[in-house]
Amino acid sequence: MSCSVAQCLEVVGEWWSLLIVRDALLGVTRFDDFQRRLGISRNVLRDRLSRLVAEGVFDKVHYQEHPVRYDYRLTDKGRDLSPVVTALREWGDRHTSPGGPPVRLVHTACGSDVHLVHRCERCAQTVERTDVRVVPGPAYANGLIPRAEPRAEEAAAWR
Amino acid sequence: MSCSVAQCLEVVGEWWSLLIVRDALLGVTRFDDFQRRLGISRNVLRDRLSRLVAEGVFDKVHYQEHPVRYDYRLTDKGRDLSPVVTALREWGDRHTSPGGPPVRLVHTACGSDVHLVHRCERCAQTVERTDVRVVPGPAYANGLIPRAEPRAEEAAAWR
Repeated sequence: MSCSVAQCLEVVGEWWSLLIVRDALLGVTRFDDFQRRLGISRNVLRDRLSRLVAEGVFDKVHYQEHPVRYDYRLTDKGRDLSPVVTALREWGDRHTSPGGPPVRLVHTACGSDVHLVHRCERCAQTVERTDVRVVPGPAYANGLIPRAEPRAEEAAAWR
Repeated sequence: MSCSVAQCLEVVGEWWSLLIVRDALLGVTRFDDFQRRLGISRNVLRDRLSRLVAEGVFDKVHYQEHPVRYDYRLTDKGRDLSPVVTALREWGDRHTSPGGPPVRLVHTACGSDVHLVHRCERCAQTVERTDVRVVPGPAYANGLIPRAEPRAEEAAAWR
């Protein structure tokens, strides 16, 4: 599917993959630590990590000889998934966590909360959902953006 | 799992769910349109949409009597998933789309590209991954943030 959302989900859309990346972003690198924190079967974890290594999200780094042991370290490509994890977390904070967020992402310099926002690269302004629209890019595939629907208010509400 | 990332994945982590939300954000509301665009089986689509309606991501709105037909419209809770879709898309654009992005999100006022950034709510500055850290929030559950790992450079690299 010629869509970057689908391409990303091809890599990390399997159940558990983004939770593995979440833990890796928090500094977890060892198979046993992932397994203990996530409470998944070793087979499933092995399968997901192998896939993520094959996709270049993790490097598998040999760190011990007897017995042979490996670290799983995020690559730059893997670290670039942090906005995905942040976006999932912020939605969960808002809609499933009435007691407040379990964790906060804070600006080290001032201790205040950091949130994802949409920013215009030219104006450098924060823009709202109603201020943006989707247009074809260089690799546009026919039909990706639907034609105007019969009832345009729905599409308008998104734009 | 007391983690907002996991809670969000509980709702939209099944294969196809976020692609359905992606299309809904583009204005698609009809079962047949989702089915045609995604190329999935009607049974799977029916199952995913039912789940998303039950979770409050979509409203199922009756629009025709003979035969009975429904629209699937994103709720506010559903529209709030747009940063998740944007984050997935931006990662895909960067890492899987060498010919450039299939679609662009642009600022309606000036036509320039809009991107997700992390912003400090106090400084109102854009902050980089190296400028933030994760701290316990009001609903913190023990162990969510791992203790310092033996090799601290990995955690340090994330912060």
